[in-house]
Order: sequence, then C-alpha cells, then structure tokens
Amino acid sequence: MNICKKITIIGMGLLGGSIGKALIAKKLAGEVVGVVRRREAVEEVRIFGAADRATLDIAEGVSGAGMVILGVPIEQMEDISKSVVRAISKDTIVTDVGSVKAPVVKRLEKIFAGNGLFVGSHPMAGKEKSGIAFSDEDLFKDAITIVTRTPATSAPALDTVRSLWEKLGSKVVELSLEDHDKAVAAISHLPHVIAVSLMNSVASAKKGDFDPFKCVGPSFRDMTRIVASPSEMWAGILLENRKEVLSALDGFIAHMREFSGLLKKRDRAALEAIFSKAKKAKEAHVNGKNS
Amino acid sequence: MNICKKITIIGMGLLGGSIGKALIAKKLAGEVVGVVRRREAVEEVRIFGAADRATLDIAEGVSGAGMVILGVPIEQMEDISKSVVRAISKDTIVTDVGSVKAPVVKRLEKIFAGNGLFVGSHPMAGKEKSGIAFSDEDLFKDAITIVTRTPATSAPALDTVRSLWEKLGSKVVELSLEDHDKAVAAISHLPHVIAVSLMNSVASAKKGDFDPFKCVGPSFRDMTRIVASPSEMWAGILLENRKEVLSALDGFIAHMREFSGLLKKRDRAALEAIFSKAKKAKEAHVNGKNS
Repeated sequence: MNICKKITIIGMGLLGGSIGKALIAKKLAGEVVGVVRRREAVEEVRIFGAADRATLDIAEGVSGAGMVILGVPIEQMEDISKSVVRAISKDTIVTDVGSVKAPVVKRLEKIFAGNGLFVGSHPMAGKEKSGIAFSDEDLFKDAITIVTRTPATSAPALDTVRSLWEKLGSKVVELSLEDHDKAVAAISHLPHVIAVSLMNSVASAKKGDFDPFKCVGPSFRDMTRIVASPSEMWAGILLENRKEVLSALDGFIAHMREFSGLLKKRDRAALEAIFSKAKKAKEAHVNGKNS
Repeated sequence: MNICKKITIIGMGLLGGSIGKALIAKKLAGEVVGVVRRREAVEEVRIFGAADRATLDIAEGVSGAGMVILGVPIEQMEDISKSVVRAISKDTIVTDVGSVKAPVVKRLEKIFAGNGLFVGSHPMAGKEKSGIAFSDEDLFKDAITIVTRTPATSAPALDTVRSLWEKLGSKVVELSLEDHDKAVAAISHLPHVIAVSLMNSVASAKKGDFDPFKCVGPSFRDMTRIVASPSEMWAGILLENRKEVLSALDGFIAHMREFSGLLKKRDRAALEAIFSKAKKAKEAHVNGKNS
C-alpha cells in the first residue's frame, strides 16, 4: 500500500497536517516528513502527530523523497519550489494543494521543467478553522480532489497523484487548468463571495431596534457557513483567479437582476419558471452527487 | 397543558399536518379537527394521524373551536377567513402561518374585526418536500416562530398564540408587521432568490464537456439546499413581500458589485476588509444562535 518510501509535506497547516495524519494512519509511506517555517512548529507537528518528524530545512526535508506535497499558500509556492527543485531527484513527484491552477501550475511547471515531475492538485476540503490544531486524518474523505493534466504532465506521475488522493478517501476529478479555474470560480469562489455579501448586506440592514438576525434559522446558517474562512487566504485565491471569478460574478449578478426585474413587473409566470428551472438543475446535477 | 378544548386547522399540508400531529402528541387540545378541500384528503388525514378527524366543511369544522389555525397558502387566506368568521364565536383565537405579514394581517384583521381574535404567526419551518405525507410532529422544534403585534391585537390572544408555538418547541420572536416583512426579506426571501440564481447561473455555465457540477462539494450543496422548495408557493410569497424583497435584493446586489469592483481593481486590502467584516458579523450575530 506504500506510495513511496518517503513523502515530504511542505507547510503543516490544516491541509498539510491533515495529509500527514492520513498518510501515517493509512501507512502510505515509509516516512512522512513535515517541513515548517517556525521553530515552534517542529514541536507542534510532533504533538499533533502530523508527521514522523519535522524540519526547518527544505533541502534536507525533501532529499530522497519519492513525493513532495506543497501545502503552503499560493503566494509562497513559487519561492519554495525554487528551493525544492535543487534538492530532489528527476523522478521525485511534486504536487500542490492550491485552489487556483492555471497561473500556479504554469509557474511551477517552469520551475520543475529541469528536475522532478510536477502534477497540480486541488483537494476541495477545508474547515472554518485553519492551522495544524484542526488537522484531521479524515479531512479528504468524500471530498472532491481535482488533478490537472497539461501537455507537460507525466502520465505515470499523474496516476500516482490520483492514487494518493483516492487513498486519502477523495473522489478524484481530472480537469484541464482552464476548466479547473472556471469550475471552482462557479462552484466555490462565487459562493464564497455570495455568502460574504449576504452576511454584510443583512448586517448593514440591522439598525436600532430592528435586528433581522433575531430570525436566523437553518437556511440562513447554511448559506453563510463558509463566511468564517480566513480572509487573507481568500483574498489571495480570488485575486489569483480574478478573471474567472469576475466572469462568474457577472453571470450571477445578471441572474439576480433578471429576477429583480421580473419581481418589479410582477411577472408571476416568469418567476415560477425561474424557480422550476433551478429545481430541475438541482435534481439533475446536484442531488445524490457526493452527498 | 390543554390550550383549549377544540383546535381546528384549516389546510392539512406540510405545516397544517405537522401542527396537528404535534398537538395530538403533546395532548394540547381535547380535539384536533382538520379542514381539507379534497375528499381524498379526509382519509389522508386519518392515515397520517394528523388530526382526530377531518371535514370538508369549514363552518362545521370551526364551530365551537377555541382556536383556528389557517394553514393554507397566502392567496387563499382571505376567502377562507370570510367563511371562518361567520362560524366562530367572539373569543375564538385565529392565527395563520403565512410567510408575509403586513398585507395578509391587515386584510385578515379587517375580516375578524367583528368576530374572533386574530393574531399573525409565521413559523419559520419547512422542508424541501410539501404535503401531509412529509408532516412531522417535530417540525417546529428549535425553529423560530414570529408572532406579530398590531394596535388591533388582543394581548391575551397573543399570549395564547405565543404559548402554542412555544409548546410546539419553537423559539418565539415578537415583531411589528413591518419589521417582520423586512426581516424575512433579508433572512429568508433574499437567500431563496440567491440560491435559485446561483443554481441557474452555474447551470448556464455548463457547456459541452465543461461541467462545473462535477466539482460540487458540501459548501455548494449547503448554499443551494433551499432550491427544492415549491416554486408556486415561493413566487406567491415574494410577490406579497415585493417591496421589501426588492429592497433586500438591491442592497445585496450593491454589495456584490462593490466586491466585483474591488476585485477588478485588485484592491487586496479592501477585499480582506470585506471578508473580515462578514466574519465579525457572523461571530456577533449568527454563531451559537439557535444552532
């Protein structure tokens, strides 16, 4: 069941820590090494059992690894990859966990063109809380993980990366870089912006004695659950996927304005048609899927 | 624990049926009578145990009742109330379950001005499925129920109605008609329109081989759960609450456009501030409430 003798995870936050715990629990590597940036994090990795050992030294950490997983924020991937590429061998598989793929994968493929085999991954898993303290060996269970294929992708490396996520419990979907960024803009990034805008627009309606939050029930709670995610990380993700997110926002706003226009005109038949269309789309595409 | 000797529910769908089951289970009335429109529904009420007996005759059904609960769609409330008012006594308490209050309560208060004591109620409870077959004695448990007070409201009648919902397990919030309609526009009606628009905008992005629904995970599913509600009912609710819903839609669209504008300008600091603001509002107003 071993994927390889040594797997190194760079960045031991919620995702990196969860990958480490799952690799250990499922015995998927001879050794799991965590690379961290803060000195105290070496001890944290030990306390939380998220790797067999942790180190501050990227070169030492990745040396001899069969697989390296980049678990750092998108903004740090390029710099870290430049350190990684010098210390791995030509058949070391490198993957990441970034939420945006086209810009990130293009940059990293250039860096790993001379050494290592890079494959882009995006496990669509997370929690409202970040940090190793919340890491969880079951985080990827039943989650969708997208892996990307480009002309530069090594087919056997892609198979190994796919198998990694499957062994961690994910359902793996393979997409091109462009389709990935478009799909997550629609399914993940747009919903985040909606949840945040909904929360802020209701908060700004609260005035004096009038408090709409008094009436909050399960549906409002469901729709705003994702608001708690870390704001820095999200601004970074949306900026990286800016073009696709803007286009998804435009499409959504157009649907909202159409609805508003029909309500203004009291066009009951058209409003009912919109509700029915959404219901049919839900039944066809969402119900039963991965639930 | 009896609220009164006889409680009559008019309309035995999801809400009416659930009220009936709960009244019987908690022994809150000497007799629970269901008034239905279709002949077959008399038998359905019996099969599902949603009332002690059912009748097609409004006058007979409400005669001698201490409380009458209007469980019919908003559009039918006025006509039915005109039949009810002729058959009840001056101390019969009448309440409803309508999702919009100002227009409905104003019409019904006029009808019951000469006879009966009307109090507006709105149990914020529901399911994706409608109909007596899905009725559930626990439907109102932990749900918010709003009761409205107007200058015409009888204080003792309001207390009895409040006590009814509390005994069914609800947390009761008292609001003016206008605050009710504004609050539910923000907390319930706006989220419905958002969920429907999100579903339709993602469905319209699906083209050829590109299928964003392949990547659907728990957060998208949470945000679109309410899409399954009956379209006719929702069009009716939104049209009744048209003014408040339009204003909530405008406010929300303005927040979405602000976000989009900042993303276009790559204003990272302002985007992070928007995320943080939403997170703070969630922590202050939503977390821990009724969850």
